[in-house]
Amino acid sequence: MWKRNIMNLFHLLKPKNCRYFSCASLQTKKYYLSNINLKFSHQHVFSAKKHETKNKVIENLNKSYLNTFTYRTHTCGELRSDHVGQKVTICGWVEFVRLSKFLLVRDSYGLTQCLINDSDINISDIPLETIVMINGTVALRPKGMYNTDMATGEIEVIIDKIDILNNVDKLPFNLRNYQKPKEQLRLQYRYIDLRFPKMQNNLRQRSLILHNMRKFLVEKHNFVEVETPTLFCRTPGGAREFIVPTHHPSLFYSLVQSPQQFKQMLMVGGIDRYFQIARCYRDEATRPDRQPEFTQLDIELSFTNLDGIVDMIEQLLQDSFPRDLPNSPFKRMTYKDALENYGTDKPNLTYEMKLKNVTSLFGHLKEPNLSAFTLPYSRKLGKLSTKYKNKINDLGKKYSVKIALNDNILKLIGDDIHNQIKCINGEENDNILAIGDRENACLCLGDIRELLAPLLKSKNLLLFKNSVEPLWVVDFPLFVKGENGLESCHHPFTAPHPEDLHLLDSDPLKVRSLAYDIVLNGNEIGGGSVRIHNPELQEKILQMLNIDSSNLHHFINALKSGCPPHAGIALGIDRLIAIACKAESIRDVIAFPKSHEGKDPLSGAPNEVNDEDKKYYHIKSI
Amino acid sequence: MWKRNIMNLFHLLKPKNCRYFSCASLQTKKYYLSNINLKFSHQHVFSAKKHETKNKVIENLNKSYLNTFTYRTHTCGELRSDHVGQKVTICGWVEFVRLSKFLLVRDSYGLTQCLINDSDINISDIPLETIVMINGTVALRPKGMYNTDMATGEIEVIIDKIDILNNVDKLPFNLRNYQKPKEQLRLQYRYIDLRFPKMQNNLRQRSLILHNMRKFLVEKHNFVEVETPTLFCRTPGGAREFIVPTHHPSLFYSLVQSPQQFKQMLMVGGIDRYFQIARCYRDEATRPDRQPEFTQLDIELSFTNLDGIVDMIEQLLQDSFPRDLPNSPFKRMTYKDALENYGTDKPNLTYEMKLKNVTSLFGHLKEPNLSAFTLPYSRKLGKLSTKYKNKINDLGKKYSVKIALNDNILKLIGDDIHNQIKCINGEENDNILAIGDRENACLCLGDIRELLAPLLKSKNLLLFKNSVEPLWVVDFPLFVKGENGLESCHHPFTAPHPEDLHLLDSDPLKVRSLAYDIVLNGNEIGGGSVRIHNPELQEKILQMLNIDSSNLHHFINALKSGCPPHAGIALGIDRLIAIACKAESIRDVIAFPKSHEGKDPLSGAPNEVNDEDKKYYHIKSI
Repeated sequence: MWKRNIMNLFHLLKPKNCRYFSCASLQTKKYYLSNINLKFSHQHVFSAKKHETKNKVIENLNKSYLNTFTYRTHTCGELRSDHVGQKVTICGWVEFVRLSKFLLVRDSYGLTQCLINDSDINISDIPLETIVMINGTVALRPKGMYNTDMATGEIEVIIDKIDILNNVDKLPFNLRNYQKPKEQLRLQYRYIDLRFPKMQNNLRQRSLILHNMRKFLVEKHNFVEVETPTLFCRTPGGAREFIVPTHHPSLFYSLVQSPQQFKQMLMVGGIDRYFQIARCYRDEATRPDRQPEFTQLDIELSFTNLDGIVDMIEQLLQDSFPRDLPNSPFKRMTYKDALENYGTDKPNLTYEMKLKNVTSLFGHLKEPNLSAFTLPYSRKLGKLSTKYKNKINDLGKKYSVKIALNDNILKLIGDDIHNQIKCINGEENDNILAIGDRENACLCLGDIRELLAPLLKSKNLLLFKNSVEPLWVVDFPLFVKGENGLESCHHPFTAPHPEDLHLLDSDPLKVRSLAYDIVLNGNEIGGGSVRIHNPELQEKILQMLNIDSSNLHHFINALKSGCPPHAGIALGIDRLIAIACKAESIRDVIAFPKSHEGKDPLSGAPNEVNDEDKKYYHIKSI
Repeated sequence: MWKRNIMNLFHLLKPKNCRYFSCASLQTKKYYLSNINLKFSHQHVFSAKKHETKNKVIENLNKSYLNTFTYRTHTCGELRSDHVGQKVTICGWVEFVRLSKFLLVRDSYGLTQCLINDSDINISDIPLETIVMINGTVALRPKGMYNTDMATGEIEVIIDKIDILNNVDKLPFNLRNYQKPKEQLRLQYRYIDLRFPKMQNNLRQRSLILHNMRKFLVEKHNFVEVETPTLFCRTPGGAREFIVPTHHPSLFYSLVQSPQQFKQMLMVGGIDRYFQIARCYRDEATRPDRQPEFTQLDIELSFTNLDGIVDMIEQLLQDSFPRDLPNSPFKRMTYKDALENYGTDKPNLTYEMKLKNVTSLFGHLKEPNLSAFTLPYSRKLGKLSTKYKNKINDLGKKYSVKIALNDNILKLIGDDIHNQIKCINGEENDNILAIGDRENACLCLGDIRELLAPLLKSKNLLLFKNSVEPLWVVDFPLFVKGENGLESCHHPFTAPHPEDLHLLDSDPLKVRSLAYDIVLNGNEIGGGSVRIHNPELQEKILQMLNIDSSNLHHFINALKSGCPPHAGIALGIDRLIAIACKAESIRDVIAFPKSHEGKDPLSGAPNEVNDEDKKYYHIKSI
């Protein structure tokens, strides 16, 4: 049995050396295909519009560079009337078979129609997605048969020889855009899903954007890309880090959540213009839309400040981002303004609809820490459905904020203040009122803003811009109140704002930091800060955060070794590329993403490990 | 205490906003420096030759792009007589103080001499390696005082203002090339060690080589860089893989040892020209000169063969490698010839000295599987010392090979054969004879060849070329005999040589594979193969290797889903860059390497992990 199969496989291994089967011999190979499901064939009359790869990245490629180092002479997307008469070799998947005579061959670059003139060849049994190599001659299609929907629609290839390079089993789904499978199935069979033009476009676009970023940094600004370790010691005060057991009993590496310490140590070491497109790890399996490993563009500079970093990122994006951006400088907003106007630290500026602070109307509010904010929206929307009302009330509970909608506002606060609110927000608007802790009231209305905006948009009551709207958010607080005392708002290495240093002991929650975020259309796509370069200040901040600095001994020592002032930033590449590609999810711009809870639908990882391996690593599962 | 310190630190945080101290106030800041060791100053009269950064990469940079996004106006390496009269701001480390009047400031790009004209300023107490910012005016040095050893030796900067941006504690070692510390200390304080010109050069060279490789692949040949996961399931049949516990009880990721499976699945998915500069992980802590994580340039192409890959890598290296290479095609050698001529699968062709097969002289050898090889070397070397004799005998024992040196050959085999050997190898040579299993006899003499070559070189009895000598080794066996049956010589996804397929069942150890290695000067810097694209053949090979394919279910399925024939390669970037930089160890081209046993001398990683974290991951140390 095996012997026969292997003899049959012989020709598949090394085209140069192999005895290809000629067209005439194809029929004798039918047994190859006998067990293969033919369900795709002949179901639909071929329509190039439905099938062809529409791929901007590929359309812009220099075609002559696509066939180096391979035995095809052309891709399936490049033959034109100029090629008529040429002998060509094309390779790809069988996209469609028509009238037992026309074979459409597809690769990632396009579609070519091949024509069988030799009546001995039977192609009607070839399953779709079989891998073939066609040797043939380019010919003009008969007049009137040009297919203007196809880039190669002027020509066809008259087949001299067809070789089946590999067979195909029944596929779990069809490669047709109008029959797109659900995401779980796509992820399980990612190696097939990647053939969809959209995925081809996304991965190719990603590669080009990252390449352009590197060119900007290396060629235009002399940055140095340095690869830093991912197996390291735990960095206190951040996200949960994966641990990696070693063959040293009880000793573990941690997978780095970012190259933060390394990039700062590089500044100490004189690599004063550093970047890295870095793999980072965070164990946030329980958060939706997060990947346990992700990519960030990590940058750090010595002898710079906030304006230097902002300027660099704006130029970098202008240079490498494929969608239109406004001119520099991008808008800048303080954290306080973002919170009080948009109820979030990452405002989506593609639509208006701002919160209004109406606390001053409530002179009689007895609790001095209470604030009142309203969110006005077009009265034309009419009464909200119960579904929306419930969601809004749930948000009120989540943030411990008193919420009142339209009619209830009157009941809650009386005619006088209600009228003043109407006067402030305009008679054409309905209002939602939130009373509570200032931050919570704003955050709650921010969430409600994001809930109502799509509803308003769907009724043409709110204008959404189609553009990319970047925004810098600055002047974040240095600390936030955590369960066990102060926590870093950004991270423990962020410098306090020099104007607020005098408050560090007396009122630390009022101290602003030199952190900054860049936001695109409501997505935080990057953040950074001026760092603390003074070891004594760094030690004090760690102490205030109640962080045990024993794992940071080397880092403090580095600050004591002649550390230049420095600042940096990290951009979240997955999200940025998703916006560039107008993808719905970051999973659509990652070749092999995990699904929920960090599981890999493709391989089934994570998996059980045998006892021998666990013993080697001196661990036991409990 | 803290309040005072923080007020003092104020000016260090954000140069734009800060009250710099003027030169006049520097003396009042002396308490800053009081506890700082001054041991470096004034020990040596300054000699630029000894100190200056000699860095080819930096010399070739476009200087005008080094000062974007920073508040320096110039680096310490770029001021020339053209700049005389200009107001400049330079930042860097204090390299040297001379006569309380001259301050040499260093950054990664060079050295600038600064002159204090104001007698109020006392700089003699500034510790070396203090971070300063100098505002001043460029002036020509007095005639006769030009320093031709310094790139900036024509000029000096007359100081208007000096600001101490950060202080420095006593450093564990001196930044002088003539006082270079031992490697362990360098790694422990890597953030200081990186300031040495050699390390600056290596990391900058590494960044440029990788950038040029990307340009070649992306711009010249339309490759797509795809980032593949590192958290994955175990790949059977390879190196030991680190495991990563998850919050799912008993379930672990494995850290990938290479993107092998992913790149093959990308071929199935139509990303037919893939590359990635990929981080890989192997738990080989016990092997010297190995890093638990390392970088490889990983490449895969569809519709190609051995010649396509060889051609691509030769062009890639011609394009990006900074040292001279011979013209294409590079030399090619079969594994058999490499073994029988050089006693290794990675021959160093920078010197001659070949093994000779003399088995035919031993017609009377009773064991048919025994072979005899000799290694001739110049008789002028004279008698080998006991040290070398012992090493040679140890190698004989290691490989279970009978070894005889010069005089002993005669005793062992008699006059007749001895004379024939002398006749073959030339009277001018002494000989070492090895008798045993063919492979072991060759490997043993190969090790002896590498042992004696440096000795012969030191006595001018063997010519070493200074060049880079690349070599392709091909026709490796598909299998090797392992303890428990057949093992892959390359990896289980390597295609058998089509000419040997008939031997797969009958004599598997005789089957050659379509694997290839590229060797530079005795270092294997890359390897790859044509892959198996036929699922049935793949399953058969896994079965022959006794590999449980349950973890490879997805992979076999991918081969069944329309998988193009494909081939690829991976280059070991750390080793390649080390050769490019003429570095002694790969650790000299890695920013933060681990030392022996996978330990990080900088942070102390791996570390203990607290019980709470272990509980979260459902593990216990044993």
